[in-house]
Amino acid sequence: MNAQSTPVQVRDQIRSGQWGKNTSGLASGYVQGNIVILPKAWADDFLKFATLNPKACPIVGMSENPGDFLLPSVGENVDIRSDVSSYKIFRDGQFKQEVSDISDVWQDDLVTFVLGCSFSFEEPLIADGLEVRNITENVNVPMYRTNIECQSAGPFSGTTVVSMRPMVPKDAIRAIQICSRFPSVHGAPLHFGQPEMIGIKDINTPDFGDAVTIKEGEVPVFWACGVTPQVALEQAKPPFCITHSPGCMLVTDIRNSALSIL
Amino acid sequence: MNAQSTPVQVRDQIRSGQWGKNTSGLASGYVQGNIVILPKAWADDFLKFATLNPKACPIVGMSENPGDFLLPSVGENVDIRSDVSSYKIFRDGQFKQEVSDISDVWQDDLVTFVLGCSFSFEEPLIADGLEVRNITENVNVPMYRTNIECQSAGPFSGTTVVSMRPMVPKDAIRAIQICSRFPSVHGAPLHFGQPEMIGIKDINTPDFGDAVTIKEGEVPVFWACGVTPQVALEQAKPPFCITHSPGCMLVTDIRNSALSIL
Repeated sequence: MNAQSTPVQVRDQIRSGQWGKNTSGLASGYVQGNIVILPKAWADDFLKFATLNPKACPIVGMSENPGDFLLPSVGENVDIRSDVSSYKIFRDGQFKQEVSDISDVWQDDLVTFVLGCSFSFEEPLIADGLEVRNITENVNVPMYRTNIECQSAGPFSGTTVVSMRPMVPKDAIRAIQICSRFPSVHGAPLHFGQPEMIGIKDINTPDFGDAVTIKEGEVPVFWACGVTPQVALEQAKPPFCITHSPGCMLVTDIRNSALSIL
Repeated sequence: MNAQSTPVQVRDQIRSGQWGKNTSGLASGYVQGNIVILPKAWADDFLKFATLNPKACPIVGMSENPGDFLLPSVGENVDIRSDVSSYKIFRDGQFKQEVSDISDVWQDDLVTFVLGCSFSFEEPLIADGLEVRNITENVNVPMYRTNIECQSAGPFSGTTVVSMRPMVPKDAIRAIQICSRFPSVHGAPLHFGQPEMIGIKDINTPDFGDAVTIKEGEVPVFWACGVTPQVALEQAKPPFCITHSPGCMLVTDIRNSALSIL
């Protein structure tokens, strides 16, 4: 599979167990989503948390009713029990195991959230000729915990996690313009320049992902990151929760361009 | 006169000699323009120069035919010979005199250009709650010569002059979004942060205007500036040329909001 594969092809291969890896670069042009699955009793507060923190937790889709494992609003025949290549299962906030199918642990009260991911805005940045360093260096984007407090909702709270891409100021300005068109995949950056202003002590030691080279004349540019809800989940400790494994996203039938507001 | 005055009231007062000062803060909500008046033989190249350098030289209006002193496209009964409170007359590129009326030096071959000015984007920045330091400190915006080359056209060439407003990164990101909506009044900034990257040696010693305070945590944000065409004119040395005096703009009937592309 590759960038030319259709979302349906990608999901079929994943469902049949033929693709267990990350989905970066597959089905170019289509939205890939972070997944959070929670019992209904916790889902309402999580929805409120996401609504209050839209830059970090942009919802691009969710199940219509508790227990629904089909998600027609994000793609044809999407079965959230099998269409993600790798899932992480948490109990009482503790990571328990990584699995490739969650059919056997599915419950009738589970609600699925599909959250926007930075893959969707990296694509138009690259299309505009900007360099995305983590892609050039073929590593995971560096991510950092910050001192930017999220709005809390019920048990969900915490600080914002940001991803970082270094750019010269001219390119950063262009990236701000391009990303402003995509509010449902994190939108415009939150900050650029001095990392310590947002509580990052060492830019060369990310809390998640990998460090990337920052060249002379470049400034670090920081976007709200989809890891933010995972940190909030760790703190809230719901009795049961399932997420995708990092990089193993749900490939949807929604075009990235459809998320553009302009 | 004040912010509540209409453009027609402002021009009437200026025309009758009752207002000889700068027009900053008058007729809030309406576009004020930089003025360049050139003989037809030089105007074609100047138009090409402006077209090739739209961020520094955004044309919001021009006379329909050489010799026209009425400019109906920018305002009711605008008479460019009398409706600017102070003009500068140049001969062979040399500044000769400052006058409040140019009727006696008007020629049948003169072409008038009205260029967008930063007043139009400072207004939406302030409306959004951002601080514009030169306004807070009640001084002229600091402006600097840079090493950013303009595209040349005939005798017109030179480097870009920029204006600078210091902001914390979060506000700079918002300013980039807002100004992107106004491409005909300089649009998004060209640069932020390190002044030396664009050839500015001392941020505390602007080449034009006044220095402003840069507070801890703020970065200088640089916009292409309407002084750029004046520098190109100084170098091109046309036999005859008239501009407005700094801050003494043409107040037009065009609403700032009408220049917004979105």
